[in-house]
Amino acid sequence: MSSSQVMSQALRAKVMSAEDAAALVEPGSHVGMSGFTGSGYPKAVPLALARRIEAAHARGEPFRIGVWTGASTAPELDGALARADGIDLRLPYQSDPATRQRINAGSIDYIDLHLSHVAQFVWFGFLGHLDVAVIECAGILPDGRLIPSTSIGNNKTWLDLADRVIIEVNSWMNPALLGMHDIYYGTRLPPHRKPIPIVAPGDRIGETTYRCNPDKVIAVVETHAPDRNTSFAAPDDVSGAIAGHILEFFEHEVKQGRLPRNLLPLQSGVGNVANAVMAGLDDGPFPHLTAYTEVLQDGMLNLIRSGRMDLASATALSLSSEAAIEFNREIEFLRDRIVLRPQEISNHPEVIRRLGVIAMNGMIEADIYGNVNSTHVRGSSIMNGIGGSGDFARNAYLSIFMTPSTAKNGTISCIVPMVTHVDHTEHDVQILVTERGLADLRGLSPKQRARIIIEKTAHPRFQPALLDYFERACRDSAGKHTPHLLDESFRLLRPE
Amino acid sequence: MSSSQVMSQALRAKVMSAEDAAALVEPGSHVGMSGFTGSGYPKAVPLALARRIEAAHARGEPFRIGVWTGASTAPELDGALARADGIDLRLPYQSDPATRQRINAGSIDYIDLHLSHVAQFVWFGFLGHLDVAVIECAGILPDGRLIPSTSIGNNKTWLDLADRVIIEVNSWMNPALLGMHDIYYGTRLPPHRKPIPIVAPGDRIGETTYRCNPDKVIAVVETHAPDRNTSFAAPDDVSGAIAGHILEFFEHEVKQGRLPRNLLPLQSGVGNVANAVMAGLDDGPFPHLTAYTEVLQDGMLNLIRSGRMDLASATALSLSSEAAIEFNREIEFLRDRIVLRPQEISNHPEVIRRLGVIAMNGMIEADIYGNVNSTHVRGSSIMNGIGGSGDFARNAYLSIFMTPSTAKNGTISCIVPMVTHVDHTEHDVQILVTERGLADLRGLSPKQRARIIIEKTAHPRFQPALLDYFERACRDSAGKHTPHLLDESFRLLRPE
Repeated sequence: MSSSQVMSQALRAKVMSAEDAAALVEPGSHVGMSGFTGSGYPKAVPLALARRIEAAHARGEPFRIGVWTGASTAPELDGALARADGIDLRLPYQSDPATRQRINAGSIDYIDLHLSHVAQFVWFGFLGHLDVAVIECAGILPDGRLIPSTSIGNNKTWLDLADRVIIEVNSWMNPALLGMHDIYYGTRLPPHRKPIPIVAPGDRIGETTYRCNPDKVIAVVETHAPDRNTSFAAPDDVSGAIAGHILEFFEHEVKQGRLPRNLLPLQSGVGNVANAVMAGLDDGPFPHLTAYTEVLQDGMLNLIRSGRMDLASATALSLSSEAAIEFNREIEFLRDRIVLRPQEISNHPEVIRRLGVIAMNGMIEADIYGNVNSTHVRGSSIMNGIGGSGDFARNAYLSIFMTPSTAKNGTISCIVPMVTHVDHTEHDVQILVTERGLADLRGLSPKQRARIIIEKTAHPRFQPALLDYFERACRDSAGKHTPHLLDESFRLLRPE
Repeated sequence: MSSSQVMSQALRAKVMSAEDAAALVEPGSHVGMSGFTGSGYPKAVPLALARRIEAAHARGEPFRIGVWTGASTAPELDGALARADGIDLRLPYQSDPATRQRINAGSIDYIDLHLSHVAQFVWFGFLGHLDVAVIECAGILPDGRLIPSTSIGNNKTWLDLADRVIIEVNSWMNPALLGMHDIYYGTRLPPHRKPIPIVAPGDRIGETTYRCNPDKVIAVVETHAPDRNTSFAAPDDVSGAIAGHILEFFEHEVKQGRLPRNLLPLQSGVGNVANAVMAGLDDGPFPHLTAYTEVLQDGMLNLIRSGRMDLASATALSLSSEAAIEFNREIEFLRDRIVLRPQEISNHPEVIRRLGVIAMNGMIEADIYGNVNSTHVRGSSIMNGIGGSGDFARNAYLSIFMTPSTAKNGTISCIVPMVTHVDHTEHDVQILVTERGLADLRGLSPKQRARIIIEKTAHPRFQPALLDYFERACRDSAGKHTPHLLDESFRLLRPE
């Protein structure tokens, strides 16, 4: 049954074991792998490669590679290679504990990139040469075209630019995925670029399969495994309250005539708060929703299944195991309502600004002037990465950032005097939301923002200290535009 | 002679003095004025309004307005109104000493916006209602259409959205400007937006004049005055060295095949360093240059006059008085080689990314990890504003930031451990240049960036302290991804 998904005679001749395929990856290679938020990543070759690397290290031979992906992957990819000390450079996004630990210990170099920048930077030649691509597919058609799997990410670019290609054909994937994807082949390098002809989230502008030069394919590996399971937590009080504030805000904006009744295309970051917002929308008054987003999670899938959302465009699925099974069962219904695109298109500033996307992203912390830290703990340790939040926030119709008001069991405030790392500047943040409330920063100066951020979003336990800082800064700061006391801007709320 | 530039009979009936026109502006109004980098601003009504405000204040009556513009204006607008304490809110950019002083004293609220965001935020209803527009034009055609002056900025939006319109017709402006402008009327609100059909810097997609509902015009005021003179300093050693590093880099990129021989469309911020780069290009090996930029300064005008640059698209001129005279003399030649557009188009992410612009912007300081501060001194006092630097930097093919390595007669390093305000994050900065050298940050992790930034761009007087900070941070920082010592990250180079 599994080999029936390799329908090309020429490529069936290249079927081999994961071990044999991994043996074709040289030390020092730049390897472009598939994978985005735990879906569509290769399941077997990275594990075999990690074993090969461990064996080399046991012999005293150096063996590390550069790992380029769409975004985060899974223990079988990032985790295995990081634990084998097999990664010297990682880009553009990760969320794996073993990888993160090594980045923050200083043994892996990590380049955190806007996800819309990655493909073009490689085409421009800014990140060096791509040696090998390792791409998971749902099948290979008789003519050699590849049926994409559950994420697209940068796969088109990796297939186009890599010298050599290893294909994993995962027979767990439903071949009925064919037709859900939209691979745009109209990109060019400047000065030859044309407008991207998307004017509505569901517009299809490309092909349903990847092109792949069969001469570059050095191995085909057959697998049968589901994607990483992402558990879907039912909304708790905190995420439910955040979602409630956002829904109330949407209703207000519709009443004011600043949003249409069916809102505008939604972008929603990953995680439980994002899922809670989607759950809230399922009970809300907004019909015929659409999404133009990176990742389609359970919450958004439920909106489509319930008929509340007409259509979603994304670059990847990120489903719980239950939802993945439902997805497979209902794939004929869903195929017309979900479009998966390359991340350079799902995250393209041109399209995001044109469509007027409502961007909703999580964060680590925000400061009283509205600068957002999405990536760093205490300015020095990376959490995951900026992902697509910058692509969406700066170009959105509405740029919303959300977080619980406290972290670490309430001991740390997520609203601080000054963030220790800035990913989204005051210029790119319009709405801040915690379970305490929503601060609408549109049309406000820094000092006006500070008062409303402290009042609406900070936890009452930290409000007095924040207000005290702000008022003393207003009195003692040299400049009164964005008053700060630099000697204590980082100290106030940071446990010693 | 002057009245010949008001060719509409209906609007000629509305000609009045600046005092009479200023009397039609109510206290508390939001006033959208023309003006961008000291060109095309109204010359008479703001002065008359400032006198009216001063008289009201002398009588003990409150009188302040919100001032919305394209970008910076001139002493006759920002300066006069600020000195009269007549501004309560200013947006989106300013560079006036009197205005800046009051913003930093806390008496004017200032909203610093990406220049591409301004028009759409007003259309979306995010910044409140626009009561009055005060727009300088070069003439009024018999049918009531307006010939734009030396800047476009947000004038189209102000004319479309304001309840009432005051037109200043400046007979100093050459009526032969007619034909140089390209006012795009194809914008829509989401979800009705279409691609912006620009595929080359010179593409004309709009109309040569502003539409204006004559019923909204409450006054026409005739003036005869040149724009603010911006003096053009000959390149000094420092700006010449910066320009030299950039030109050498361009040559290298052409050799590597990463830039075409005629480069890609240039964007150049304002100031002497930018002018020095343009002067360098005039002697350089790159033919048939183009520009897709905000502001056309003397240096770029010289490139066009010398035949080195085929064409420049901008939203405003910012010329010295000598260059302004030459501009007027050669306007027939220049009209086919310069396109002035609304700032929402000159700065549009869609067009900037499509064209692959090379963005070159000044800054106040950068940190060792490549974060850039363009706006704030010591985190609290605003200098000017972010302007269009974010629109260009994030969407550029190459994002270059430049500054002398030191400020205040060499006593302050412009390369610091951690910037006190972030306008451009590590994700948006590819090249840093000072007179000491050029740091190419593409494809580097934070620690790799730090070493090269310190080595290539910092002044030798400050290199040991920066290296010492970095090495101790690498040793003592909790996280080794972006090592920092938060207790001293702001203290090291800051004079007490």
